[in-house]
Amino acid sequence: MKGMDINMNEQGNSVKHKAMPRSEEELRQLQNRLSRITGQLNGIGRMLEENRYCGDVLMQVAAVEKALQALGYMILQSHMETCMVEEIEKGNTEVIDEVVGLIKNLK
Amino acid sequence: MKGMDINMNEQGNSVKHKAMPRSEEELRQLQNRLSRITGQLNGIGRMLEENRYCGDVLMQVAAVEKALQALGYMILQSHMETCMVEEIEKGNTEVIDEVVGLIKNLK
Amino acid sequence: MKGMDINMNEQGNSVKHKAMPRSEEELRQLQNRLSRITGQLNGIGRMLEENRYCGDVLMQVAAVEKALQALGYMILQSHMETCMVEEIEKGNTEVIDEVVGLIKNLK
Amino acid sequence: MKGMDINMNEQGNSVKHKAMPRSEEELRQLQNRLSRITGQLNGIGRMLEENRYCGDVLMQVAAVEKALQALGYMILQSHMETCMVEEIEKGNTEVIDEVVGLIKNLK
Repeated sequence: MKGMDINMNEQGNSVKHKAMPRSEEELRQLQNRLSRITGQLNGIGRMLEENRYCGDVLMQVAAVEKALQALGYMILQSHMETCMVEEIEKGNTEVIDEVVGLIKNLK
Repeated sequence: MKGMDINMNEQGNSVKHKAMPRSEEELRQLQNRLSRITGQLNGIGRMLEENRYCGDVLMQVAAVEKALQALGYMILQSHMETCMVEEIEKGNTEVIDEVVGLIKNLK
Repeated sequence: MKGMDINMNEQGNSVKHKAMPRSEEELRQLQNRLSRITGQLNGIGRMLEENRYCGDVLMQVAAVEKALQALGYMILQSHMETCMVEEIEKGNTEVIDEVVGLIKNLK
Repeated sequence: MKGMDINMNEQGNSVKHKAMPRSEEELRQLQNRLSRITGQLNGIGRMLEENRYCGDVLMQVAAVEKALQALGYMILQSHMETCMVEEIEKGNTEVIDEVVGLIKNLK
Protein backbone atom coordinates (compact mmCIF):
# COMPACT_ATOMS: atom_id res chain seq x y z
CA MET A 1 0.00 0.00 0.00
CA LYS A 2 1.58 3.21 -1.13
CA GLY A 3 2.47 5.35 1.86
CA MET A 4 1.32 2.84 4.42
CA ASP A 5 3.17 3.34 7.68
CA ILE A 6 3.81 0.32 9.82
CA ASN A 7 4.18 1.28 13.47
CA MET A 8 4.47 -0.87 16.50
CA ASN A 9 1.74 -0.51 19.06
CA GLU A 10 2.20 -1.15 22.76
CA GLN A 11 1.77 -4.89 22.34
CA GLY A 12 4.44 -4.88 19.68
CA ASN A 13 2.00 -5.73 16.92
CA SER A 14 2.23 -3.89 13.68
CA VAL A 15 -0.48 -1.31 13.15
CA LYS A 16 -1.36 -0.08 9.71
CA HIS A 17 -1.81 3.65 9.27
CA LYS A 18 -3.16 3.56 5.78
CA ALA A 19 -2.36 6.66 3.78
CA MET A 20 -2.37 7.56 0.14
CA PRO A 21 0.02 10.25 -1.08
CA ARG A 22 -1.48 11.81 -4.21
CA SER A 23 0.40 13.71 -6.90
CA GLU A 24 0.20 17.53 -6.78
CA GLU A 25 -1.64 17.44 -10.09
CA GLU A 26 -4.22 14.87 -8.99
CA LEU A 27 -4.79 16.65 -5.67
CA ARG A 28 -5.32 19.96 -7.49
CA GLN A 29 -7.84 18.38 -9.88
CA LEU A 30 -9.79 16.76 -7.07
CA GLN A 31 -9.84 19.99 -5.01
CA ASN A 32 -11.02 21.92 -8.08
CA ARG A 33 -13.89 19.51 -8.55
CA LEU A 34 -14.79 19.75 -4.86
CA SER A 35 -14.80 23.57 -5.04
CA ARG A 36 -17.05 23.49 -8.08
CA ILE A 37 -19.48 21.12 -6.34
CA THR A 38 -19.50 23.37 -3.25
CA GLY A 39 -20.27 26.31 -5.54
CA GLN A 40 -23.15 24.39 -7.09
CA LEU A 41 -24.53 23.62 -3.62
CA ASN A 42 -24.37 27.32 -2.71
CA GLY A 43 -26.27 28.01 -5.93
CA ILE A 44 -29.01 25.61 -4.81
CA GLY A 45 -29.17 27.44 -1.47
CA ARG A 46 -29.72 30.74 -3.29
CA MET A 47 -32.39 29.19 -5.55
CA LEU A 48 -34.28 28.04 -2.46
CA GLU A 49 -34.06 31.51 -0.86
CA GLU A 50 -35.34 33.07 -4.07
CA ASN A 51 -38.31 30.67 -4.02
CA ARG A 52 -37.30 29.26 -7.36
CA TYR A 53 -39.46 26.62 -9.02
CA CYS A 54 -38.85 23.12 -7.59
CA GLY A 55 -38.35 21.64 -11.06
CA ASP A 56 -35.38 23.96 -11.64
CA VAL A 57 -33.97 23.23 -8.18
CA LEU A 58 -34.26 19.49 -8.82
CA MET A 59 -32.40 19.85 -12.13
CA GLN A 60 -29.54 21.43 -10.17
CA VAL A 61 -29.62 18.71 -7.52
CA ALA A 62 -29.36 16.12 -10.32
CA ALA A 63 -26.39 18.04 -11.79
CA VAL A 64 -24.58 17.99 -8.43
CA GLU A 65 -25.31 14.27 -8.06
CA LYS A 66 -23.64 13.67 -11.43
CA ALA A 67 -20.62 15.83 -10.53
CA LEU A 68 -20.20 14.00 -7.24
CA GLN A 69 -20.50 10.62 -8.93
CA ALA A 70 -17.79 11.64 -11.41
CA LEU A 71 -15.55 12.68 -8.50
CA GLY A 72 -16.18 9.31 -6.85
CA TYR A 73 -15.24 7.39 -10.01
CA MET A 74 -12.10 9.50 -10.37
CA ILE A 75 -10.96 8.62 -6.84
CA LEU A 76 -11.99 4.98 -7.39
CA GLN A 77 -9.92 4.68 -10.57
CA SER A 78 -6.91 6.26 -8.85
CA HIS A 79 -7.39 3.88 -5.91
CA MET A 80 -7.46 0.91 -8.26
CA GLU A 81 -4.41 2.09 -10.23
CA THR A 82 -2.28 2.59 -7.12
CA CYS A 83 -3.29 0.85 -3.89
CA MET A 84 -5.13 -2.04 -5.56
CA VAL A 85 -2.39 -2.75 -8.09
CA GLU A 86 0.27 -2.76 -5.36
CA GLU A 87 -1.70 -5.16 -3.20
CA ILE A 88 -2.29 -7.47 -6.18
CA GLU A 89 1.41 -7.38 -7.05
CA LYS A 90 2.14 -8.43 -3.46
CA GLY A 91 -0.25 -11.34 -3.99
CA ASN A 92 -2.94 -9.88 -1.75
CA THR A 93 -5.96 -10.32 -4.01
CA GLU A 94 -8.32 -9.88 -1.06
CA VAL A 95 -8.08 -6.17 -1.80
CA ILE A 96 -10.64 -6.86 -4.55
CA ASP A 97 -13.30 -7.64 -1.94
CA GLU A 98 -12.70 -4.21 -0.45
CA VAL A 99 -12.84 -2.48 -3.85
CA VAL A 100 -16.09 -4.24 -4.81
CA GLY A 101 -17.54 -3.20 -1.44
CA LEU A 102 -16.63 0.43 -2.19
CA ILE A 103 -18.16 0.19 -5.69
CA LYS A 104 -21.45 -1.11 -4.25
CA ASN A 105 -21.61 1.91 -1.94
CA LEU A 106 -21.06 4.46 -4.70
CA LYS A 107 -24.00 5.44 -6.90
CA MET B 1 -48.82 26.82 -9.63
CA LYS B 2 -48.38 28.15 -6.15
CA GLY B 3 -46.77 31.58 -6.33
CA MET B 4 -46.76 31.71 -10.10
CA ASP B 5 -46.87 35.31 -11.20
CA ILE B 6 -48.67 36.09 -14.41
CA ASN B 7 -47.30 39.29 -15.91
CA MET B 8 -48.05 40.87 -19.20
CA ASN B 9 -45.09 41.21 -21.53
CA GLU B 10 -44.72 43.90 -24.16
CA GLN B 11 -46.89 42.01 -26.59
CA GLY B 12 -49.58 41.75 -23.95
CA ASN B 13 -49.21 37.99 -23.67
CA SER B 14 -49.12 36.42 -20.27
CA VAL B 15 -45.68 35.22 -19.18
CA LYS B 16 -45.26 32.68 -16.46
CA HIS B 17 -42.65 33.43 -13.82
CA LYS B 18 -42.67 30.08 -12.11
CA ALA B 19 -41.89 30.39 -8.45
CA MET B 20 -42.40 28.24 -5.41
CA PRO B 21 -42.75 29.96 -2.05
CA ARG B 22 -41.66 27.52 0.64
CA SER B 23 -42.61 27.62 4.28
CA GLU B 24 -40.04 29.08 6.72
CA GLU B 25 -39.78 25.66 8.32
CA GLU B 26 -39.20 23.79 5.06
CA LEU B 27 -36.66 26.34 3.85
CA ARG B 28 -34.78 26.10 7.15
CA GLN B 29 -34.67 22.29 6.91
CA LEU B 30 -33.42 22.34 3.32
CA GLN B 31 -30.75 24.95 4.12
CA ASN B 32 -29.61 22.90 7.12
CA ARG B 33 -29.20 19.86 4.92
CA LEU B 34 -27.28 21.87 2.34
CA SER B 35 -24.94 23.24 5.06
CA ARG B 36 -24.31 19.76 6.35
CA ILE B 37 -23.51 18.48 2.84
CA THR B 38 -21.14 21.43 2.27
CA GLY B 39 -19.46 20.56 5.57
CA GLN B 40 -19.06 16.94 4.44
CA LEU B 41 -17.47 18.13 1.16
CA ASN B 42 -15.00 20.30 3.10
CA GLY B 43 -14.21 17.21 5.15
CA ILE B 44 -13.40 15.31 1.95
CA GLY B 45 -11.11 18.18 0.90
CA ARG B 46 -9.22 17.90 4.19
CA MET B 47 -8.96 14.10 3.85
CA LEU B 48 -7.37 14.56 0.42
CA GLU B 49 -4.88 17.12 1.75
CA GLU B 50 -3.94 14.77 4.59
CA ASN B 51 -3.32 12.01 2.03
CA ARG B 52 -5.92 9.84 3.64
CA TYR B 53 -6.55 6.34 2.31
CA CYS B 54 -8.74 6.32 -0.84
CA GLY B 55 -11.06 3.71 0.66
CA ASP B 56 -11.91 6.08 3.51
CA VAL B 57 -12.32 9.02 1.12
CA LEU B 58 -14.66 6.94 -1.07
CA MET B 59 -16.76 6.00 1.97
CA GLN B 60 -17.22 9.74 2.59
CA VAL B 61 -18.08 10.40 -1.06
CA ALA B 62 -20.73 7.67 -0.85
CA ALA B 63 -22.12 9.27 2.33
CA VAL B 64 -22.43 12.66 0.59
CA GLU B 65 -24.13 10.98 -2.38
CA LYS B 66 -26.71 9.52 0.00
CA ALA B 67 -27.27 12.85 1.75
CA LEU B 68 -27.71 14.63 -1.57
CA GLN B 69 -30.12 11.97 -2.80
CA ALA B 70 -32.18 12.39 0.38
CA LEU B 71 -32.27 16.16 -0.20
CA GLY B 72 -33.42 15.57 -3.78
CA TYR B 73 -36.25 13.26 -2.67
CA MET B 74 -37.31 15.82 -0.05
CA ILE B 75 -37.61 18.56 -2.68
CA LEU B 76 -39.31 16.12 -5.07
CA GLN B 77 -41.95 15.15 -2.51
CA SER B 78 -42.61 18.79 -1.69
CA HIS B 79 -42.88 19.55 -5.43
CA MET B 80 -45.40 16.76 -5.88
CA GLU B 81 -47.44 17.79 -2.83
CA THR B 82 -47.72 21.42 -3.92
CA CYS B 83 -47.11 22.30 -7.58
CA MET B 84 -48.09 18.90 -8.99
CA VAL B 85 -51.27 18.59 -6.92
CA GLU B 86 -52.38 22.09 -7.95
CA GLU B 87 -51.82 21.39 -11.62
CA ILE B 88 -53.72 18.10 -11.38
CA GLU B 89 -56.59 19.84 -9.60
CA LYS B 90 -56.69 22.30 -12.49
CA GLY B 91 -56.95 19.35 -14.84
CA ASN B 92 -53.41 19.73 -16.15
CA THR B 93 -52.17 16.13 -15.86
CA GLU B 94 -49.32 16.84 -18.27
CA VAL B 95 -47.38 17.96 -15.20
CA ILE B 96 -46.82 14.23 -14.58
CA ASP B 97 -44.59 14.01 -17.66
CA GLU B 98 -42.43 16.75 -16.16
CA VAL B 99 -42.29 15.04 -12.76
CA VAL B 100 -41.33 11.67 -14.29
CA GLY B 101 -38.61 13.45 -16.27
CA LEU B 102 -37.24 14.93 -13.04
CA ILE B 103 -37.35 11.52 -11.33
CA LYS B 104 -35.35 9.92 -14.16
CA ASN B 105 -32.65 12.56 -13.70
CA LEU B 106 -32.29 12.05 -9.97
CA LYS B 107 -30.28 9.10 -8.68
CA MET C 1 -58.61 4.03 -7.38
CA LYS C 2 -59.46 2.76 -10.83
CA GLY C 3 -60.85 -0.74 -10.53
CA MET C 4 -60.70 -0.85 -6.77
CA ASP C 5 -63.35 -3.22 -5.47
CA ILE C 6 -64.89 -2.44 -2.13
CA ASN C 7 -66.22 -5.61 -0.51
CA MET C 8 -67.55 -6.19 2.93
CA ASN C 9 -65.62 -8.65 5.03
CA GLU C 10 -67.09 -10.78 7.78
CA GLN C 11 -66.96 -7.92 10.25
CA GLY C 12 -68.79 -5.73 7.80
CA ASN C 13 -65.83 -3.44 7.29
CA SER C 14 -64.96 -2.37 3.81
CA VAL C 15 -61.90 -4.12 2.40
CA LYS C 16 -59.98 -2.69 -0.50
CA HIS C 17 -59.02 -5.11 -3.24
CA LYS C 18 -56.68 -2.85 -5.09
CA ALA C 19 -56.57 -3.58 -8.77
CA MET C 20 -55.52 -1.70 -11.83
CA PRO C 21 -57.22 -2.53 -15.12
CA ARG C 22 -54.82 -1.62 -17.91
CA SER C 23 -55.72 -0.89 -21.50
CA GLU C 24 -55.16 -3.70 -24.03
CA GLU C 25 -52.56 -1.52 -25.73
CA GLU C 26 -50.64 -0.75 -22.54
CA LEU C 27 -50.73 -4.37 -21.42
CA ARG C 28 -49.42 -5.50 -24.81
CA GLN C 29 -46.55 -3.00 -24.66
CA LEU C 30 -45.57 -4.02 -21.14
CA GLN C 31 -45.69 -7.73 -22.01
CA ASN C 32 -43.57 -7.10 -25.11
CA ARG C 33 -40.96 -5.37 -23.00
CA LEU C 34 -41.00 -8.20 -20.47
CA SER C 35 -40.53 -10.79 -23.27
CA ARG C 36 -37.61 -8.84 -24.67
CA ILE C 37 -35.97 -8.63 -21.24
CA THR C 38 -36.48 -12.39 -20.71
CA GLY C 39 -34.85 -12.95 -24.11
CA GLN C 40 -31.90 -10.80 -23.08
CA LEU C 41 -31.52 -12.83 -19.86
CA ASN C 42 -31.51 -16.08 -21.86
CA GLY C 43 -28.81 -14.51 -24.02
CA ILE C 44 -26.72 -13.87 -20.91
CA GLY C 45 -27.22 -17.51 -19.90
CA ARG C 46 -25.87 -18.64 -23.28
CA MET C 47 -22.91 -16.25 -23.04
CA LEU C 48 -21.99 -17.78 -19.68
CA GLU C 49 -22.23 -21.33 -21.09
CA GLU C 50 -20.02 -20.35 -24.01
CA ASN C 51 -17.43 -18.97 -21.54
CA ARG C 52 -17.70 -15.55 -23.07
CA TYR C 53 -15.51 -12.74 -21.80
CA CYS C 54 -16.85 -11.18 -18.56
CA GLY C 55 -16.60 -7.68 -19.98
CA ASP C 56 -19.04 -8.62 -22.74
CA VAL C 57 -21.36 -10.37 -20.27
CA LEU C 58 -21.32 -7.29 -18.02
CA MET C 59 -22.23 -5.05 -20.96
CA GLN C 60 -25.29 -7.25 -21.47
CA VAL C 61 -26.19 -7.16 -17.77
CA ALA C 62 -26.00 -3.35 -17.92
CA ALA C 63 -28.28 -3.36 -20.99
CA VAL C 64 -30.87 -5.50 -19.17
CA GLU C 65 -30.66 -3.17 -16.15
CA LYS C 66 -31.47 -0.22 -18.42
CA ALA C 67 -34.38 -2.07 -20.09
CA LEU C 68 -35.80 -3.03 -16.70
CA GLN C 69 -35.44 0.52 -15.41
CA ALA C 70 -37.32 1.81 -18.48
CA LEU C 71 -40.10 -0.72 -17.81
CA GLY C 72 -40.27 0.45 -14.20
CA TYR C 73 -40.58 4.11 -15.22
CA MET C 74 -43.30 3.20 -17.73
CA ILE C 75 -45.37 1.48 -15.02
CA LEU C 76 -44.64 4.34 -12.60
CA GLN C 77 -45.84 6.98 -15.06
CA SER C 78 -48.99 4.98 -15.77
CA HIS C 79 -49.54 4.58 -12.01
CA MET C 80 -49.21 8.32 -11.49
CA GLU C 81 -51.51 9.17 -14.42
CA THR C 82 -54.30 6.87 -13.23
CA CYS C 83 -54.33 5.76 -9.59
CA MET C 84 -52.45 8.76 -8.21
CA VAL C 85 -54.50 11.34 -10.12
CA GLU C 86 -57.77 9.74 -8.97
CA GLU C 87 -56.68 9.72 -5.35
CA ILE C 88 -55.60 13.36 -5.57
CA GLU C 89 -58.91 14.30 -7.17
CA LYS C 90 -60.64 12.63 -4.22
CA GLY C 91 -58.53 14.79 -1.92
CA ASN C 92 -56.33 11.92 -0.77
CA THR C 93 -52.89 13.47 -1.21
CA GLU C 94 -51.34 10.87 1.08
CA VAL C 95 -50.99 8.76 -2.07
CA ILE C 96 -47.91 10.91 -2.79
CA ASP C 97 -46.07 9.36 0.18
CA GLU C 98 -46.67 5.96 -1.36
CA VAL C 99 -45.50 7.09 -4.80
CA VAL C 100 -42.32 8.66 -3.40
CA GLY C 101 -41.66 5.43 -1.51
CA LEU C 102 -41.96 3.48 -4.77
CA ILE C 103 -39.64 5.92 -6.55
CA LYS C 104 -36.97 5.50 -3.86
CA ASN C 105 -37.06 1.73 -4.40
CA LEU C 106 -36.64 1.90 -8.16
CA LYS C 107 -33.17 2.46 -9.57
CA MET D 1 -6.37 -13.30 -19.96
CA LYS D 2 -7.56 -16.66 -18.77
CA GLY D 3 -8.69 -18.73 -21.71
CA MET D 4 -7.72 -16.20 -24.34
CA ASP D 5 -6.88 -17.95 -27.56
CA ILE D 6 -4.31 -16.37 -29.80
CA ASN D 7 -4.91 -17.46 -33.38
CA MET D 8 -3.32 -16.31 -36.54
CA ASN D 9 -5.67 -14.76 -39.06
CA GLU D 10 -5.14 -14.79 -42.81
CA GLN D 11 -2.77 -11.86 -42.64
CA GLY D 12 -0.73 -13.66 -40.03
CA ASN D 13 -1.67 -11.18 -37.31
CA SER D 14 -2.61 -12.48 -33.94
CA VAL D 15 -6.33 -12.27 -33.17
CA LYS D 16 -7.62 -12.34 -29.64
CA HIS D 17 -10.64 -14.52 -28.99
CA LYS D 18 -11.38 -13.37 -25.50
CA ALA D 19 -12.99 -16.05 -23.42
CA MET D 20 -13.46 -16.69 -19.77
CA PRO D 21 -13.76 -20.29 -18.60
CA ARG D 22 -15.76 -20.31 -15.40
CA SER D 23 -15.72 -23.03 -12.76
CA GLU D 24 -18.63 -25.50 -12.76
CA GLU D 25 -19.66 -24.16 -9.37
CA GLU D 26 -19.61 -20.50 -10.43
CA LEU D 27 -21.47 -21.24 -13.66
CA ARG D 28 -24.15 -23.15 -11.75
CA GLN D 29 -24.59 -20.27 -9.28
CA LEU D 30 -24.88 -17.68 -12.04
CA GLN D 31 -27.37 -19.82 -14.02
CA ASN D 32 -29.45 -20.33 -10.85
CA ARG D 33 -29.61 -16.61 -10.31
CA LEU D 34 -30.58 -16.03 -13.94
CA SER D 35 -33.36 -18.64 -13.67
CA ARG D 36 -34.68 -17.00 -10.53
CA ILE D 37 -34.69 -13.58 -12.20
CA THR D 38 -36.50 -15.02 -15.23
CA GLY D 39 -39.05 -16.53 -12.84
CA GLN D 40 -39.54 -13.13 -11.19
CA LEU D 41 -40.10 -11.54 -14.62
CA ASN D 42 -42.73 -14.15 -15.45
CA GLY D 43 -44.37 -13.30 -12.13
CA ILE D 44 -44.54 -9.65 -13.16
CA GLY D 45 -46.15 -10.70 -16.46
CA ARG D 46 -48.85 -12.59 -14.53
CA MET D 47 -49.42 -9.64 -12.17
CA LEU D 48 -50.02 -7.41 -15.20
CA GLU D 49 -52.49 -9.89 -16.72
CA GLU D 50 -54.36 -10.09 -13.44
CA ASN D 51 -54.62 -6.28 -13.38
CA ARG D 52 -52.74 -6.13 -10.12
CA TYR D 53 -52.19 -2.79 -8.42
CA CYS D 54 -49.28 -0.83 -9.96
CA GLY D 55 -47.70 -0.25 -6.56
CA ASP D 56 -47.36 -4.01 -6.07
CA VAL D 57 -46.02 -4.48 -9.61
CA LEU D 58 -43.45 -1.72 -9.04
CA MET D 59 -42.29 -3.39 -5.82
CA GLN D 60 -41.60 -6.51 -7.88
CA VAL D 61 -39.79 -4.54 -10.58
CA ALA D 62 -37.59 -3.02 -7.86
CA ALA D 63 -36.89 -6.52 -6.49
CA VAL D 64 -35.78 -7.75 -9.94
CA GLU D 65 -33.58 -4.66 -10.34
CA LYS D 66 -31.84 -5.55 -7.07
CA ALA D 67 -31.40 -9.21 -8.07
CA LEU D 68 -29.94 -8.19 -11.43
CA GLN D 69 -27.61 -5.71 -9.79
CA ALA D 70 -26.38 -8.44 -7.42
CA LEU D 71 -25.75 -10.72 -10.42
CA GLY D 72 -23.80 -7.93 -12.11
CA TYR D 73 -21.61 -7.37 -9.06
CA MET D 74 -20.99 -11.12 -8.80
CA ILE D 75 -19.75 -11.25 -12.41
CA LEU D 76 -17.76 -8.03 -11.88
CA GLN D 77 -15.98 -9.41 -8.82
CA SER D 78 -15.18 -12.63 -10.64
CA HIS D 79 -13.90 -10.60 -13.62
CA MET D 80 -11.65 -8.58 -11.34
CA GLU D 81 -10.35 -11.64 -9.49
CA THR D 82 -9.43 -13.48 -12.69
CA CYS D 83 -9.00 -11.46 -15.91
CA MET D 84 -8.05 -8.20 -14.22
CA VAL D 85 -5.55 -9.77 -11.83
CA GLU D 86 -3.87 -11.65 -14.70
CA GLU D 87 -3.54 -8.52 -16.80
CA ILE D 88 -2.12 -6.57 -13.85
CA GLU D 89 0.38 -9.36 -13.16
CA LYS D 90 1.46 -9.09 -16.80
CA GLY D 91 1.99 -5.37 -16.22
CA ASN D 92 -1.03 -4.36 -18.29
CA THR D 93 -2.68 -1.89 -15.89
CA GLU D 94 -4.74 -0.42 -18.73
CA VAL D 95 -7.25 -3.14 -17.91
CA ILE D 96 -8.35 -0.87 -15.05
CA ASP D 97 -9.73 1.67 -17.53
CA GLU D 98 -11.91 -1.07 -18.98
CA VAL D 99 -13.07 -2.24 -15.54
CA VAL D 100 -13.96 1.32 -14.45
CA GLY D 101 -15.88 1.75 -17.72
CA LEU D 102 -17.87 -1.43 -16.93
CA ILE D 103 -18.56 -0.22 -13.38
CA LYS D 104 -19.93 3.09 -14.67
CA ASN D 105 -22.36 1.21 -16.89
CA LEU D 106 -23.70 -1.01 -14.13
CA LYS D 107 -26.28 0.43 -11.74
